[in-house]
Amino acid sequence: MRVSRLMLVTLRDDPAEAEISSHKLLLRGGYIRRISSGIYAYLPLLWRVLQKIEGIVRQEMNATGALETLLPQLQPAELWQRSGRWDGYTAGEGIMFHLQDRQERQLGLGPTHEEVITALAADLLRSYRQLPVSLYQIQTKFRDEIRPRFGLMRGREFIMKDAYSFHASEESLKQSYAAMDLAYRRIFARCGLRAVAVEADSGAIGGSASQEFMVTAEAGEDLILTSEDGRYGANQERAVSLPPPAVELQQSPCQELATPGLASIEDLCRVHGFDPTQIVKVLVLVARFAAAPAQPLLVCLRGDQQLNEVKLANAVSARAAEGAGALLEITPISNELLAAEGLAPLPFGSLGPQLDDGVLAGARSWQQRFLRLADTTATDLTGFVCGACRSDQHLVGASWEALLPQPDQRPQSLDLRAAQPGDRCLHAPEQTLLAARGIEVGHIFQLGRKYSQALEATFTNEAGSEEALWMGCYGIGVSRLAQAAVEQHHDEQGICWPTSIAPFEVIVVPANIEDPLQQQLAESLLTELLDAGVDALLDDRSERAGVKFKDADLIGIPWRVVVGRDAANGQIELVQRQGRSTEALAASALLEVLLPRLTTERCGLLGEPA
Amino acid sequence: MRVSRLMLVTLRDDPAEAEISSHKLLLRGGYIRRISSGIYAYLPLLWRVLQKIEGIVRQEMNATGALETLLPQLQPAELWQRSGRWDGYTAGEGIMFHLQDRQERQLGLGPTHEEVITALAADLLRSYRQLPVSLYQIQTKFRDEIRPRFGLMRGREFIMKDAYSFHASEESLKQSYAAMDLAYRRIFARCGLRAVAVEADSGAIGGSASQEFMVTAEAGEDLILTSEDGRYGANQERAVSLPPPAVELQQSPCQELATPGLASIEDLCRVHGFDPTQIVKVLVLVARFAAAPAQPLLVCLRGDQQLNEVKLANAVSARAAEGAGALLEITPISNELLAAEGLAPLPFGSLGPQLDDGVLAGARSWQQRFLRLADTTATDLTGFVCGACRSDQHLVGASWEALLPQPDQRPQSLDLRAAQPGDRCLHAPEQTLLAARGIEVGHIFQLGRKYSQALEATFTNEAGSEEALWMGCYGIGVSRLAQAAVEQHHDEQGICWPTSIAPFEVIVVPANIEDPLQQQLAESLLTELLDAGVDALLDDRSERAGVKFKDADLIGIPWRVVVGRDAANGQIELVQRQGRSTEALAASALLEVLLPRLTTERCGLLGEPA
Repeated sequence: MRVSRLMLVTLRDDPAEAEISSHKLLLRGGYIRRISSGIYAYLPLLWRVLQKIEGIVRQEMNATGALETLLPQLQPAELWQRSGRWDGYTAGEGIMFHLQDRQERQLGLGPTHEEVITALAADLLRSYRQLPVSLYQIQTKFRDEIRPRFGLMRGREFIMKDAYSFHASEESLKQSYAAMDLAYRRIFARCGLRAVAVEADSGAIGGSASQEFMVTAEAGEDLILTSEDGRYGANQERAVSLPPPAVELQQSPCQELATPGLASIEDLCRVHGFDPTQIVKVLVLVARFAAAPAQPLLVCLRGDQQLNEVKLANAVSARAAEGAGALLEITPISNELLAAEGLAPLPFGSLGPQLDDGVLAGARSWQQRFLRLADTTATDLTGFVCGACRSDQHLVGASWEALLPQPDQRPQSLDLRAAQPGDRCLHAPEQTLLAARGIEVGHIFQLGRKYSQALEATFTNEAGSEEALWMGCYGIGVSRLAQAAVEQHHDEQGICWPTSIAPFEVIVVPANIEDPLQQQLAESLLTELLDAGVDALLDDRSERAGVKFKDADLIGIPWRVVVGRDAANGQIELVQRQGRSTEALAASALLEVLLPRLTTERCGLLGEPA
Repeated sequence: MRVSRLMLVTLRDDPAEAEISSHKLLLRGGYIRRISSGIYAYLPLLWRVLQKIEGIVRQEMNATGALETLLPQLQPAELWQRSGRWDGYTAGEGIMFHLQDRQERQLGLGPTHEEVITALAADLLRSYRQLPVSLYQIQTKFRDEIRPRFGLMRGREFIMKDAYSFHASEESLKQSYAAMDLAYRRIFARCGLRAVAVEADSGAIGGSASQEFMVTAEAGEDLILTSEDGRYGANQERAVSLPPPAVELQQSPCQELATPGLASIEDLCRVHGFDPTQIVKVLVLVARFAAAPAQPLLVCLRGDQQLNEVKLANAVSARAAEGAGALLEITPISNELLAAEGLAPLPFGSLGPQLDDGVLAGARSWQQRFLRLADTTATDLTGFVCGACRSDQHLVGASWEALLPQPDQRPQSLDLRAAQPGDRCLHAPEQTLLAARGIEVGHIFQLGRKYSQALEATFTNEAGSEEALWMGCYGIGVSRLAQAAVEQHHDEQGICWPTSIAPFEVIVVPANIEDPLQQQLAESLLTELLDAGVDALLDDRSERAGVKFKDADLIGIPWRVVVGRDAANGQIELVQRQGRSTEALAASALLEVLLPRLTTERCGLLGEPA
């Protein structure tokens, strides 16, 4: 390939639309162009990268025995209604684009394919003899993101590899899950990425266990917490830890304390000398469901702890009434919301766990009782400070027993707190959790029977009776992975592609294409490289050498062969993009020097220490 | 690969949903499953076929120098508004699925990509030095078909290869168009398809010239007309021919004739002894536009001729007022429609070219003058029979001059008739047009500057001034091609895939897998074939031999190696799917016999006489 035929358009300046390095570099290097918010054209250079990534993914998926298939992008609403996800994906978070066809039937644009594949499995899989079986596809997916950003990182149209496995038993599911875990580690290593596997929340996909693969990078949207020994790692959404011990509260019995103007825990502690761990703070929120009245929530946390919203949403979903439908959102209750319900304002800043359900009496559309939940750091306190449920009044020396004498009035105790960097590890309290930022490039799930039961996908087991299939699902963000690679591998001058996924492995740059000697040598080196199976590019443009070097650095080809003035003596220069080390050598020695290095680099990080 | 791991589910009976052979066979062979109307899952067997087709398409596209890319499927309405196609594709024919995102912006699901690629070209292409350049993609496209049918033939979601070329001159466009024509012929031949190239209407895509590639098959939706010498071929939508000569009308001068109850040309001729070629028939229709009042049409044809609706639509579009927007539809005028406009009924059956614009006076929403068009077979008549514009009255011996004394009242004369099989050819009147049915698998267009002007995609030419890019576009229906191959290559027992696109080239079938000798020999033949680079499959199921043979015939693997009782003597049977010829041979000779045949077959029809 020749640069003159590549439609290469590079930009000197950072485009205004981009915030993070990888996004800037992909735009500047002529890899992508924005067509609409969160929607990009993949230009020929990026397409080469994507094809290489897809090639690696295919090889490793095929090696697990998975079969490639292609499922529709347009999916009938009816399948999503059967699984109970239509409302949550359209009216709720609303991340599924949806439309009506000319017959006024509702269709969704697939963000994922559990429903379609389970409906197919119900048709095709009948007997344990056909199991286990895995299917995968590489396909463009859609999400109507609230805030599309960072280029391919959080787009509205993106390429995914999604796989689904079907099993006769949970045991078999766990085996395939483990095999996928290994395949994923190989895929990311072969792509030249440093990725860590962490425990994850299963979110809207559901199921019993799930694990994310995170490419570590400063610009990552996710916070990962890992133990020093590396034995524990989790997305903060999911992470658990030991909280710091609470400072015991001396004062008792319970007394009122006037706290005018002290609405924050910080102020309360500063003025009255409390420690935040001695305080129970109360959040009131309201959960909206697809098919049930909104449910007010009263959530208690120890004063020094932060709410983990994902844990709360999971807890609320798990406690929803039968038929309530999808949990659409949880929002804080404000005095505006209360007024809209025809309810009196609340003394925010002075709320306590004893807040009576009477404050909800007569609500227009809400349930009239709180769902009461508390983090165990709060319920573990025996004496504490909390609001008195009257403006500018707190209670000091309160206790659960005294505030709420009936045990059934007390909140359910569970893990609702956000683990923080510096917290002690559960598995080894002498270690603390370290923080890193990550870009999620893969996620694997043990789905269990959630979808097979909803869509009646059953098989005949060895004993001859019908049971629901066990399922797993396994995703890789292919286009996001390409950008994550740039985020992890770049410098001031541009991209430093790992060789295994670079658009080209080698670029031959004659310093002066008008010099017949240089041109001739460059052409013959190109031919030699191509004949040796090297993915090589020739910069045949009549640009100044500096421009061509800058472009080569920007687009990030791993090896640059410079044919300059020494061409007359058969001498060339070999420059490695990563680290920019340079060596002079005879043109005749190029293959001998380069091929062994390429052979190693094509394997990515396989064999390198983790 | 082994059949037991292939999730193969074949059906004995024809599924009720399928009408044509290829659709039935793809369902029965476990290639596809319907998910929604016109929307199919491509199961692993079909995916292998599609990948082979895509491989051939990629090789031939790359050989032309085209660059592979991937453009978004979700396209902003704004681009389609700029090209003037949004209304026609949504409100008009309505074949573009469209939706609103959470910001209430309109997006369309791409049925084609002229707008997106032209917007990109406007950004990336600046100078004649970058030209010519061609880009292509292989991608799922969407059409909200009125009548999805025949499986992958007319689906609502389907795979296309679409390519777009950009040029500094029409000359250069024509060169690329010719190169694509050749590439297309190679692609279809390599896929093992007999395809013919025919002139085509450019339809909603537009441009000056276009050519379709038709796979000939009885079940084809298109009627193709070709000359006996093969020098002329066209889709009926576009075809031209010499009409039969008219029989001269003796009677003159013009007289009225009472024709009670004779509303059809057939009746009129039967009762009064006219020849249909002596009659001018009049159609009144109304054309609806996106941004202008509806335009009534008065169309004259010779009595023996049929209207070509595509030619009429093109003529009406070309004559629409500036700013009228897309032509949405043309429908016949009925007395119901007239009443809705507040107009008096018309004497249908007795209309003539002299019908006065006064009948439109006071129309509520229509233009109040007819657009008058006539086929040249009608305007060429000097004396003719036509309606008198009064019920049950005709005129005999009418002439254009007498009926419409002012030349500007007379209709514009042009080609509006449908060419018919048996018509004489324009290029060689001694030959007649032959009819064949075809499945359109490719279509190439010289777009000219239609899109580049609308989207302001310009370049600086050698003289230093800005001009609009010249464009071509080139499509192949990849998933439709797969089914067209089945339609052209099947028999009573099932599919007979051309080797180059078969899901597997060879299937090894041990008659009895429980026989260790048979099993062993079958396994070693599988290994031998795989090692020789043959795409081989082993039927390792413990089914009866008859079941396995039936399945192999149904799914259509080109070569079957049967390992039966003679395995003990090292003897096997080699069966060719197409034609079912059988030969016994030594297992040790298999590669020697088979490899040369496969090598030839992998080239498809290349080298075979057309």
